[in-house]
Parts: sequence; structure tokens; C-alpha cells
Amino acid sequence: MREDYVRIFDTTLRDGEQSPGATMTSAEKLEVARVLARLGVDIIEAGFPAASPDDLEAVRRIAIEVGIPNDGTRPPVICGLARATRNDIEKAWEAVRHAARPRIHTFLATSEIHMQYKLKMTREQVVQRVREMVVYARSLCEDVEFSPEDAGRSDPEFLYRVLGEAIQAGATTLNIPDTVGYTLPDEFGALIAGIVQNTPGIENCTISVHCHNDLGLATANTLAGIRAGARQAEVTINGIGERAGNTALEEVVMALHTRPNQFGLATGIDTTQIARVSKLVSNYTGIVVQPNKAVVGANAFAHEAGIHQDGMLKHNQTYEIMRPETVGASVSKLVLGKHSGRHALKARLTSMGYFLGEAETDQLFERFKALADKKKTITDADLEALISDELYQPRELFSLENLQVACGTMGMPTASVRLRDPSGNLHVQASIGTGPVDATYKAIDAIVQVPNILQEFVVHAVTEGIDALGEVTVRIQGENSLVLDAQTEVDQPRTYGGYGADTDIVVASAKAYLSAINKMLVATGQYGPVEFAATQAVQQA
Amino acid sequence: MREDYVRIFDTTLRDGEQSPGATMTSAEKLEVARVLARLGVDIIEAGFPAASPDDLEAVRRIAIEVGIPNDGTRPPVICGLARATRNDIEKAWEAVRHAARPRIHTFLATSEIHMQYKLKMTREQVVQRVREMVVYARSLCEDVEFSPEDAGRSDPEFLYRVLGEAIQAGATTLNIPDTVGYTLPDEFGALIAGIVQNTPGIENCTISVHCHNDLGLATANTLAGIRAGARQAEVTINGIGERAGNTALEEVVMALHTRPNQFGLATGIDTTQIARVSKLVSNYTGIVVQPNKAVVGANAFAHEAGIHQDGMLKHNQTYEIMRPETVGASVSKLVLGKHSGRHALKARLTSMGYFLGEAETDQLFERFKALADKKKTITDADLEALISDELYQPRELFSLENLQVACGTMGMPTASVRLRDPSGNLHVQASIGTGPVDATYKAIDAIVQVPNILQEFVVHAVTEGIDALGEVTVRIQGENSLVLDAQTEVDQPRTYGGYGADTDIVVASAKAYLSAINKMLVATGQYGPVEFAATQAVQQA
Repeated sequence: MREDYVRIFDTTLRDGEQSPGATMTSAEKLEVARVLARLGVDIIEAGFPAASPDDLEAVRRIAIEVGIPNDGTRPPVICGLARATRNDIEKAWEAVRHAARPRIHTFLATSEIHMQYKLKMTREQVVQRVREMVVYARSLCEDVEFSPEDAGRSDPEFLYRVLGEAIQAGATTLNIPDTVGYTLPDEFGALIAGIVQNTPGIENCTISVHCHNDLGLATANTLAGIRAGARQAEVTINGIGERAGNTALEEVVMALHTRPNQFGLATGIDTTQIARVSKLVSNYTGIVVQPNKAVVGANAFAHEAGIHQDGMLKHNQTYEIMRPETVGASVSKLVLGKHSGRHALKARLTSMGYFLGEAETDQLFERFKALADKKKTITDADLEALISDELYQPRELFSLENLQVACGTMGMPTASVRLRDPSGNLHVQASIGTGPVDATYKAIDAIVQVPNILQEFVVHAVTEGIDALGEVTVRIQGENSLVLDAQTEVDQPRTYGGYGADTDIVVASAKAYLSAINKMLVATGQYGPVEFAATQAVQQA
Repeated sequence: MREDYVRIFDTTLRDGEQSPGATMTSAEKLEVARVLARLGVDIIEAGFPAASPDDLEAVRRIAIEVGIPNDGTRPPVICGLARATRNDIEKAWEAVRHAARPRIHTFLATSEIHMQYKLKMTREQVVQRVREMVVYARSLCEDVEFSPEDAGRSDPEFLYRVLGEAIQAGATTLNIPDTVGYTLPDEFGALIAGIVQNTPGIENCTISVHCHNDLGLATANTLAGIRAGARQAEVTINGIGERAGNTALEEVVMALHTRPNQFGLATGIDTTQIARVSKLVSNYTGIVVQPNKAVVGANAFAHEAGIHQDGMLKHNQTYEIMRPETVGASVSKLVLGKHSGRHALKARLTSMGYFLGEAETDQLFERFKALADKKKTITDADLEALISDELYQPRELFSLENLQVACGTMGMPTASVRLRDPSGNLHVQASIGTGPVDATYKAIDAIVQVPNILQEFVVHAVTEGIDALGEVTVRIQGENSLVLDAQTEVDQPRTYGGYGADTDIVVASAKAYLSAINKMLVATGQYGPVEFAATQAVQQA
């Protein structure tokens, strides 16, 4: 291990995807894994394979499609999470073994409160289980990571002992999580320093840090851990994750990048892709990024937007510590218009990092021309909305054929929808609601007949201007759809996000709702197995 | 000054309100000041009075209405920002002098890059200006705060000298800003420790810290400054502010509160009001809070939401370091239904902290009954949306009488609107657009005829369920509407936010757009002076 290099371990697809409403389809997970590989992360934690057959299959596909180099480059390590049980470890191995560089990540809690109330195990039982399970994982896989859960609140002496056992048993990376986001930077740095000093055999392993943001200190704690000797940081895009989330990849990477004299540490991240990956993850998960989010918020570089900023532009360091170009936030926004051809579109998509096949390009070009008829200039953001809407949808079981809506202050908002069902039959339904979206959703419900609760509904304009595309993200919760949480070991209600984009926000709302319903039907196996490749597109009426 | 007490200096209304799109009406500012006083902040920085006559007037109103105790309690200090010029200091004094405890806060940059490129002043000139202007401010006001701008990048020796001069000249609080969010916690702590040790006369002053979040480290830096001896923290609600924002009040307060053994420091904040104030500021500024935001994000306490969480509930400390009740996030959400009377509504509003007059209660009760006819249960969030929509609107110049919309996939989305103008005349206009909102806004534009650019458009469902109220926030930028930025000293384009709530999101969109247009017309003086009290409500059709 190079002493001046910090490995970036991205857990967007595992700890991030566990957060309420962040559920992604397997196709979305695969696409996120692809962009993470292109971003330059060292390790992708692709999921928790024991949670369900779908989760296992999603990790397996990522191991095959992203974990095997097809162009001579070094692929990222593909990692699967496992509780410290034989079954979980076997499932994780089954999922990751196809990758060129697989890793099993197993964990067991070491704090008194977790051992007593959650595990109901004594210290000796914990030590023995760690030894056995790391040995077992290592018998399957060369690369084994072990995490003492809730390390931030564990007795340090006991922690050194457990870690030493894990190292003896064959663990190659020791990850120290502040599971509940409780520690302060000084404390967490001291914890890592103590581990470096007191754990037998630690000099041959990589120390990793995994922080949570409950007190707003995840980035500071991660940096404190790195200063104390950690050389792997576990992070997520946009800091998504349970509760207040995980450490944000973009913050840690840009702190190391902006303050080289303080750290003298490199990462493998291509920072110019950060803004695009942030947007993609926000679209797929439906978890918005607030405008004042560090590095990736819409206002993070807002000084650029003003018009009377001569002084600023001449000496941009007056109020700016990083350039927007560095994180890919300032690429020219005005790209294409109604006279742009298929070639120009394809060139622009390639420069944005999308490598589409001919059929997909044709499909997108058709949507592009339709949009260009309505909107003067088509920006990168518009193209990304079209791609999400067109290419990264779940398998289309129910599809929208037509929608007609009347609403306003005069009362009785009414929607008529025509849907095509999985067998190809058309259904028509009219419904009255409290507003146009309510009426539309009620009409869809009357046809689809799958009980669910709408948990979140958000509309954003993609760009400035009143003629902008509207993107709608919704989150629904099925009545009988549960998933196992690795840490609490209880089944949590599973929620499904949906996405739709259209210049008509009611049409976009209908598409987003159908997309969430299709995702739920596929995931609960109500209509055959999960599909992986970018699938059929939503048909345009 | 008590050694074990940290003063909370809230600058939501100054540094927060400067962020793009966060512009608030004077009525909204006054309401925010009221809830900040109730929250228990020690100092309210109410604005930058030299920016415009409106800004001065807004600060003056806050000084009078919030800065004078009317019930025997100790009111917060009301502070106004001023560059280090006689004119700015006079304007600040004119605005804050009515308060029982006024403060003038003046600043001048001390970093080489700012002195050379922005101020074009030598070190000696800077020292002299600081001395003169602090003396002048002190001649008007007992309580004077001085900030060396960009202290984080200033030469420490020079900084000690400037601060020493400010103290000799009469400054009572010395605020150390990390203006560009560049420092790391260790560095910032060391900067404060150096100031404590090397600045002549510092022992009689309060040291304050003011951090920015460009690298995600604002909270950690603020806490490091406090550990090193600072006893005032400058913060904003939700961490709003320019670029990646300021330090979030809720994170600093909850870190001190959650880790008493580490800090041993108290604040005057009533933490149980944090969630409500966060929501109010988000509504008024239109700046959303991401679900994974620490302390105030929708998911911050998401473990509570699950249904199969016996283990969690029995031993909630397993995965939880603070209780949602502590920040007021878990009050029962189900409050009222269609059979609830006016008395029940008023009681609920009072317990939520809204003290409305009879006329306002009547007005709200009417909206409440209309909503209860459409929606089964009315939650606190619904009530807050109605209050924002009904009571905290700008003076209504143009008002919506009627709206009728047809849209869908069949083409030609059409909107017809009827507006009442400031003279009471009715105007009707039909328009075609790319979607229902575009058509509606084009029809409104054709009547109002005030050129503007729509910068942001967001719709949120207030609660779960397809029958939820939709709240729309928009942000527009007028073509000739500029405002002076205190730091860059250039005129920035001013943007105006608008808010509307309705079960019909197209109606809510129309109301939000009119609210932003009215705000812009009032602020640019196109229709008489700014109004302060909670004003006429949007009429219901």
C-alpha cells in the first residue's frame, strides 16, 4: 500500500441505497456502478447479497459487468457486505466471485450496548465468532474486510483485541465505523491513532474509516481518521445514507485536493466527473441535493452566475477556493438547438460520458427533436433528464398511452388515462381528484389495482425558463414489500422511487408514478424476474 | 461573560438571506426574527442596512418589534452589518438604535489577497481605517463587533495587531470569519488559540467564530474554535448562506447538547423548536433541506418511521444518539379532521407557536375547512403550508381570481386566467404553452407585463398520500433588480421567491408565481412602499 494514497471505498449502492426511498432498480445500480468505476473509485460496495435474491443478483451483475476489465484498465474491487454468519458470507462470495478483484466485507458489533441488546453475546463469543467468520471468508476470498460495528462507542482495549484476532484470521482491511455519528473529530482521530499503536499486526493491513453525519461531522471525522493513519475512506455520493447519511465522497476528495500542503495525499478520483455523478445518483434515488450542499449544491459556485462580477473574475481566489471546472460544474450549459443533428447529439452525449448504442441513440434523438420543437436551447441537464426518462426505466409493465386532464380553481379536477397492460391490452379510466395529479393517480390505481402509499412527490424544473422540462420523482411504499436491514436485522418496509420528465408536469407525474409501480411489481416478482439491461423505453403518446 | 456559555449569533437574515434566491419580504423577515427570539438566540443579525432603503427599514422594524421586550423577558441583541465606512455605520445605527440592546457589526478584510485586489489598501491603511471606524461605531453604540474578513487566510501576526487596535478602539466582540470555507478544524482551532494568546486586551472581549461550509467542515471548524476559547458562534438556520452556506445552527447546538462531557458548554437555545424554525425558514426562502441533512433532514430520525422496530424502540440508543423529541421532530403528526372546530384549530396553532388574531384565525379556519373536505386528516405540516400560503404573503398587487387548465399527452396545453390588478380591475387571458404551468405563466405574463426569468420551480407534497397539499416555491429574477453585496461590493441581480399551496399543483403554481411577482413589484417600488404586517391574504376563488 502506498503511504500517500487514500483508497476511496464507495458504498452508495449499499449504505446509501439503504436509506429510506433510495431503492434503485438493478439497471440503475449497474449504471451507478459504471459511473463510479469511471469516476475512479477503488472499491465499490455493491450491496448486501443476503438481503434478498434480487440484491444478490444485482451485486453479481455488477461483479460481471463492471468488475471484469474489458479494455485493459484495472477494474475496481467489487465488494459485498455480510453479517458474521456462514450464510451471509457464502451469499456475498456467490455474488462477488465473478469480479477480477472480489472482496467480502463482514462485520460484528463490539460496543457494550450492541453486544448486550442486539447480539446478546458475551465478549468471548464475539471474539470467537469474528475469528471463525474471518477465517471462513478468507478461505473463499483473498481480500477480506472486517468492521467492528459501533467502534466509536466500543471499549478501546477490547477493540484492539478483536481487530488483532481479525488480522490473525486473515483480514486485509480493518474498517472503523462511527455507526451512530456520535464522535467528534479529535476523539475519532485519537481512536484511529490508538488502533495504529496498539493493534498487533496492523502494520500489514489497511485501516479504513466509515463515518455518519448525525452531528454534521462526518467529513471532519473522516479527515481526522486519515490524518491519524487511515488509508481507506468509506463514502457515498451526495452523502446519502441512513438517517443524516454517510460521509460525502465529494467533500473528502475535494478537501484532500484543495489542501495538498496539509495532507499530501492523493486519490484516484477524476474530480471533473463529480458533478455529473452527483446528479445521476440524485435522479435515480430521488434524494434531492440542497442548494447549499458543499461541492455539489446548485449554489456551491454561485458567484459564477452573476453578471456584474468583473472583480471576482479577475481574481477569482478572492472568494473561491476551488474552480467549478475542477468538479465538472461549469461546463458550457448551452449545447444544442432545434437544428442540431443526430451526429451533434451523439458527440455531445459521448463528451458527457454516455456511450449509447445505435438504437438507444435513435430513441433519444427522437425525444430530443420533440423537445427542441418546444424549447429554444437544450442543455446538458435536459439531455440527462431525457436519458433518465428514456433509457433507465424499469421494465415497462404498464405503460402510458394517453392522458387528458382538466383542472383549475373551478372545481372537479378530472383526468382520463389510457394504459397498456403487460399483456398489451388497453384500459381507459376517468377519475376526479383533489388536483390534476391526484385525479391522474386515482385513474391509474383503478386500472393497475396495486395498493400503495405515495410517500413523496417532488417536481423540479430542469433548467431556467418557463418552458423548462419538469422532472418528477415519486416514492411509493407497497403494502407487503419488506427488505432485511443488515444492521438492525429487522425487515424494513421497502419503498420504490419513480422518475419521469416532460414539459407537461402532469404527464411527467403520470410517468413517474407508473415507473415506481413497475419497479415495485418487478421487485416483488409479480411480473417475472428482474431485468438488468437498459430496458424498453417509455413509449411516447 | 460566563465561561461555560456559548452565545448563538444568528445571521439567517443577513448572510443567509444573501444566498441566491433566499430573498425574503420584510414581513417574512420580521416573522423569522420573532421565531428566532422565541428559539432563544442571543443575537439576531437582522440585515445589511446600507444595501438599500428597504433593507434598512426591515432591520429597523425588527429592532422595534422584536428588539424591545414587551413581556418583561430579555430581548435578543439586534445587530446590523456595516462595511468600515461612516455611511454604512450610520445606516446600521439608524436601523438598530431602536432596540433595547443594539449592536453594530463592522468588518474589513485583512488577508493579503483581499487587501491587494479588493480593497487596494496597504496594511497601514487597513489598521488606520479599523481604528477610526470602530471608534466611530463605538461613539454611537455601546456594543460593537469587528470582523477581520478572510481571517482564515490572513497573516496571524498582522491579525493580532488589527484585532488589538479594534479592541483599543472599543470593540466588544471580535469575530473571526473563515470567509471562504478554506480551513481545516485543527488549523482553525489553532488560529483561535493564537488569537487568545497573542492579542492584547482580548481577555475582556468575546471571541466569535464565523465559518463557511465549502469543504463540508463548517460545523467542525466552529466547534474547534469554541474549544479554543470562542464563546460566540455565528450560524444560520439550515446552514443557508452564500455558496455552500454558513455553519448550521442546529448542528452546533446539538453537538454541544449531545456531548456535554466533551464541551461542558450551554446555549440559550430551546432545542424543541429547532424542527419548526427549520421548516419555516425553508418555506420562506424556498431553499429546500435535503432528506439526509443532519438534525433537520426528513430522514434524520428515520428509524422511528419503520413498523417492525421493537428492538430499536426498546433500546433506542442502539442506533440513535438523540431523540427526535429533543429537536421537536416527533410531535404527533395526526391532528385534525373535518369535524374539528375553530377552537380545536386555534388550540393546535397555539401549541405550534402561532399566536394569531381573530381575523387571521377566521381566515385560516375557512381554508382549513375547505382542505378538510378534500383530505381525511390535517397534519401540522398542512397547517404550516396553509399559514405560509394565507398569512405570510407579500402585499397582494395582482391576485388570482380564476384559473382553468387543460393538458395531457394530446397536445396544446391551454390555460385561462382571470387576475385582479392593483386598481381592482379584472383581466382575462388565455394562453397555450409547453405544459400547464408554462401556459398559466404565459397568460399571467401577458396581463402583468413585468419581464422576469423563472430561475427555479419546485413542487413538494406536504404530506404522504395522493390527496396531499402541494406546495410550490418559485424563484424569479427581475431584469432591472440589483442589490449591493456587502463583501464583493458589486451589485448582484436580486431574485424573489414565491410560495403557494393548494391540492391542485397548477393552482399552487399560479399562486406562487403571483406571490413572487408581487414581491418583486413591491421591492422595486413599482407599487408603493413595502408593507410589514402580515398582509391581506390570497383570495380563494
